[in-house]
Amino acid sequence: MKKIAYLGIPGSNSYTAAKNYFGEKNEFIGVKKFEEIYQKILADEIQYGIVPVENSLAGTIAENYDLLSRYDVNVTGEYYLKFENHLLVLQSSRHPVEERDPVTIDTRLKNITKVYSHPQPLAQCYRFFQEHPWMEGIAYTDTAAAAKFVSEQKDVTFAAIGNADAAELYGLEILQKTIADDNENNFTRFFAISKHKSSDTELDKCSLIFTLPHVPGSLVHALEVLARHELNLIKIESRPIHGKPFEYNFYVDVKMEGKSVQFTEQIIELFRTKTQSLKILGFYKSGSFEY
Amino acid sequence: MKKIAYLGIPGSNSYTAAKNYFGEKNEFIGVKKFEEIYQKILADEIQYGIVPVENSLAGTIAENYDLLSRYDVNVTGEYYLKFENHLLVLQSSRHPVEERDPVTIDTRLKNITKVYSHPQPLAQCYRFFQEHPWMEGIAYTDTAAAAKFVSEQKDVTFAAIGNADAAELYGLEILQKTIADDNENNFTRFFAISKHKSSDTELDKCSLIFTLPHVPGSLVHALEVLARHELNLIKIESRPIHGKPFEYNFYVDVKMEGKSVQFTEQIIELFRTKTQSLKILGFYKSGSFEY
Repeated sequence: MKKIAYLGIPGSNSYTAAKNYFGEKNEFIGVKKFEEIYQKILADEIQYGIVPVENSLAGTIAENYDLLSRYDVNVTGEYYLKFENHLLVLQSSRHPVEERDPVTIDTRLKNITKVYSHPQPLAQCYRFFQEHPWMEGIAYTDTAAAAKFVSEQKDVTFAAIGNADAAELYGLEILQKTIADDNENNFTRFFAISKHKSSDTELDKCSLIFTLPHVPGSLVHALEVLARHELNLIKIESRPIHGKPFEYNFYVDVKMEGKSVQFTEQIIELFRTKTQSLKILGFYKSGSFEY
Repeated sequence: MKKIAYLGIPGSNSYTAAKNYFGEKNEFIGVKKFEEIYQKILADEIQYGIVPVENSLAGTIAENYDLLSRYDVNVTGEYYLKFENHLLVLQSSRHPVEERDPVTIDTRLKNITKVYSHPQPLAQCYRFFQEHPWMEGIAYTDTAAAAKFVSEQKDVTFAAIGNADAAELYGLEILQKTIADDNENNFTRFFAISKHKSSDTELDKCSLIFTLPHVPGSLVHALEVLARHELNLIKIESRPIHGKPFEYNFYVDVKMEGKSVQFTEQIIELFRTKTQSLKILGFYKSGSFEY
């Protein structure tokens, strides 16, 4: 049994990702800030953490890339979670869940005046709120805490936006499924992180953060090293560095395409000579997803 | 006098960007969806639009890149707006704004129970809500509409998060300035767009969207063309294409470094031969900002 930290409380999206990736038979520890996960790993309080790094709708989550570059941890795995944004409500004895007839559901929808969730899902359910203008979306720290709050208040005019785990954990009922504007493409990519390197066998992907010398063409000269040795880039992103005008961090994912870790490491050391600074975040087995 | 479209109503961040970039002596037309801006340009109903493409905290705004790639418009300029997240409240005759003593402000803060704004600023003011736990953050379509709503409700327990323009336009008072967690680095980059090419003289930047053939090293081979001719990349980002696994759009900004538009166009045509598809979004004069 491993100790694994995640952001939030049981029922948060990070919790679901942790449970799905590591398996249920582990100890899951919720924290309030991403940074605590990194600190607990370095203090040997936990063996693993799980952190979101990219969302298909909102893009790269820069905070975790910043923490990955500052803390001495390894990326050991990758997991893609499809976000479910369900409308969660108190169970009703008068209108039990079995009666899924449209009129009952409609009546219950009409009773709801306040919908609690994290600001991000609230924004992603824009159309739902336009179609149900009597409901107010109220920002809450996270989706699971919002579900917990609604279950505790026992007010039938309250609802939360959250996932099926949160519904089950807090005894809520899913009144309407997947209410986000774009449910199909709402994925979040998570990294599993640890003090140690990945113990998986089929390592086929590697993530890097680097900066470049201030000379024209420095990006091409660096990437050329990878291309020449048939290491394929599958993500590249430049992000301005706060407080340093015109300096950029580059986030890159490399697909190893059958090459060994040892070979890839040698090539990355060649690549390093073309950069100003470089950190290998880790070698890991790529997660599966479908866009 | 030009007709210029922006997202939202007067006092929105897009409105402020439009006014600052084009100057006040124009006609500004608020719309409800980004796509309307592009449609109105093509229908000759307006001459210009202004759209956000990148936020220093939240990253690239993919929706506008998607629209830029689909609609036949040109990027004619760039503008960086520093976001102000102020706490806006009704003016009080009992506690006038002149009395900026801490006790009065504290009393008025204690009275506020509901804070309306767009979900993004609500999320960016996380610490403020933690320090003022009696306030509920309520999601609203946009910051300016939230300010307008608060001014109309005339309820002293309501507040909005918005900018100084919104405060002035809707007769609200700034009770507390810049309440976001990270005020210094909260910039948004806007593109000015039009049916026609930029009429500015000092064009020094160019934005491209492209896709690549599915062969290893295709990115390096393409970028090499730009590097060889001393055109500097200052932004590069790959984004997965929805519904097409392992296919990517690349968003790139090129700094022309003293080269002419004609020369740069020739190089981009060479560059095009290395891509699968390519769209020049436009040549424009780069906006100034400080990170």
